Amino acid sequence: MNDVEARLRGSFAKQTMMQTLGAELEEAAEGRTRIAAPIADHVLQQQGFAHAALAFAIGDSAAGYAALSVLPEGAEVVTVEMKINLLSPAVGDRLVAEGRVIRPGRRIVAVASDVFAEGEKGRKHVATLLGTMVPVEP
Amino acid sequence: MNDVEARLRGSFAKQTMMQTLGAELEEAAEGRTRIAAPIADHVLQQQGFAHAALAFAIGDSAAGYAALSVLPEGAEVVTVEMKINLLSPAVGDRLVAEGRVIRPGRRIVAVASDVFAEGEKGRKHVATLLGTMVPVEP
Amino acid sequence: MNDVEARLRGSFAKQTMMQTLGAELEEAAEGRTRIAAPIADHVLQQQGFAHAALAFAIGDSAAGYAALSVLPEGAEVVTVEMKINLLSPAVGDRLVAEGRVIRPGRRIVAVASDVFAEGEKGRKHVATLLGTMVPVEP
Amino acid sequence: MNDVEARLRGSFAKQTMMQTLGAELEEAAEGRTRIAAPIADHVLQQQGFAHAALAFAIGDSAAGYAALSVLPEGAEVVTVEMKINLLSPAVGDRLVAEGRVIRPGRRIVAVASDVFAEGEKGRKHVATLLGTMVPVEP
Repeated sequence: MNDVEARLRGSFAKQTMMQTLGAELEEAAEGRTRIAAPIADHVLQQQGFAHAALAFAIGDSAAGYAALSVLPEGAEVVTVEMKINLLSPAVGDRLVAEGRVIRPGRRIVAVASDVFAEGEKGRKHVATLLGTMVPVEP
Repeated sequence: MNDVEARLRGSFAKQTMMQTLGAELEEAAEGRTRIAAPIADHVLQQQGFAHAALAFAIGDSAAGYAALSVLPEGAEVVTVEMKINLLSPAVGDRLVAEGRVIRPGRRIVAVASDVFAEGEKGRKHVATLLGTMVPVEP
Repeated sequence: MNDVEARLRGSFAKQTMMQTLGAELEEAAEGRTRIAAPIADHVLQQQGFAHAALAFAIGDSAAGYAALSVLPEGAEVVTVEMKINLLSPAVGDRLVAEGRVIRPGRRIVAVASDVFAEGEKGRKHVATLLGTMVPVEP
Repeated sequence: MNDVEARLRGSFAKQTMMQTLGAELEEAAEGRTRIAAPIADHVLQQQGFAHAALAFAIGDSAAGYAALSVLPEGAEVVTVEMKINLLSPAVGDRLVAEGRVIRPGRRIVAVASDVFAEGEKGRKHVATLLGTMVPVEP
């Protein structure tokens, strides 16, 4: 585990929401991250699909950690704003969010994520997110 | 409990994500809804504030139910897209989301929510959401 | 004309895009602004309605000047991101954008605008915008 | 010129806003489009950069035509909502917007655009857009 990965895993472990959702940080590299969560019985909406908030939660976090990965050690980031477009019903075994940095900056980091549903029927693109992170004093 | 309220409460009860987050539908009127959730230990981000996904979850649901409340009985809605701007750290006892319809339509319903943190220090505006719902066949 | 208004009018006059669109800064007060533009022959989309870019242009500027109005003299702002939801076809004599500050901050200013079409048939809400401005060195 | 291209060029020619901005439809293929506009004296903001509304105008149109290109002949599309994140000051000779379809649908088409500034210093990514188009009766 390199420094970037250790730093991101340390922060991720403190997010109790991620544990509540069963989310795991599967990849933590410079500028790219992947977070997955099962489509479990406790995270559904009224039709039995994964709740939009699950896609948002892991998509936002994947984007935030992508931003954090390109900032100096000791930095923290917060989400200023995040937009999610929901593309398909989130059906399957689990959701996987892949975060990336679109444009790094000292004061503003533009980020994006794509969220996929994975299951027996393969992999489907279910959501895309576009947002803004800012570094804050820890 | 009138028809609109009964309909919204029936749908809300099926959302297991709402139960996981401890959220409650406090008001369900035509065009206006209110959902609250405690800032509990299991929904935090890495700095100990309520996770952005909590504000999103109740803000998106409050907006969705506001949309549902102006549609004919038997309708369902899904979120097409939702943007959240985070205004302040979500600190306090609980988050309260107030949803409203900006413009109803047969095919597209524009919606908004505001999310407030309530606690000993009073009430603070912590997030605002703007999005699009579409009616779907149940 | 007070200081805030003079400052905003000075900046507005330098925006050649506003002149190209025939836009005028009708109100420039602390935290609230209004910009209007005619629905003229040279700003239409393919169906003969005002182009979404006209609503965006005056909505974004109204929001930006609302932000500028609450910042210290000498400041400039730039748009980090802006979302527009289009509510109705923009038909009539002119569009009017009303900008406001949702939350001021030293580093981040959350802003919003509403755009109305005005004409013989009255006033109609045609767009709503939600975005983020940041102060920059002039 | 194939059918898709002819259809898109016919619609584009009716948008007087595009002519006002000096914009040209450079590419019109199925699912992908490119629109360019000069950073001319009449489309600037107060600091002398291209106005955000220029990037929005061509980015939104490029996305809309990408959506139109995948719909049946005779269809029209309108923008339901569009978000733009501005990444860098738009400086150079011209702006180029590349539009694409993220997810086509009968009722909802998710779209995106990237906008680049081109000039002596090369090509720079200045904006990214994410939005929703819906087909309408012509």
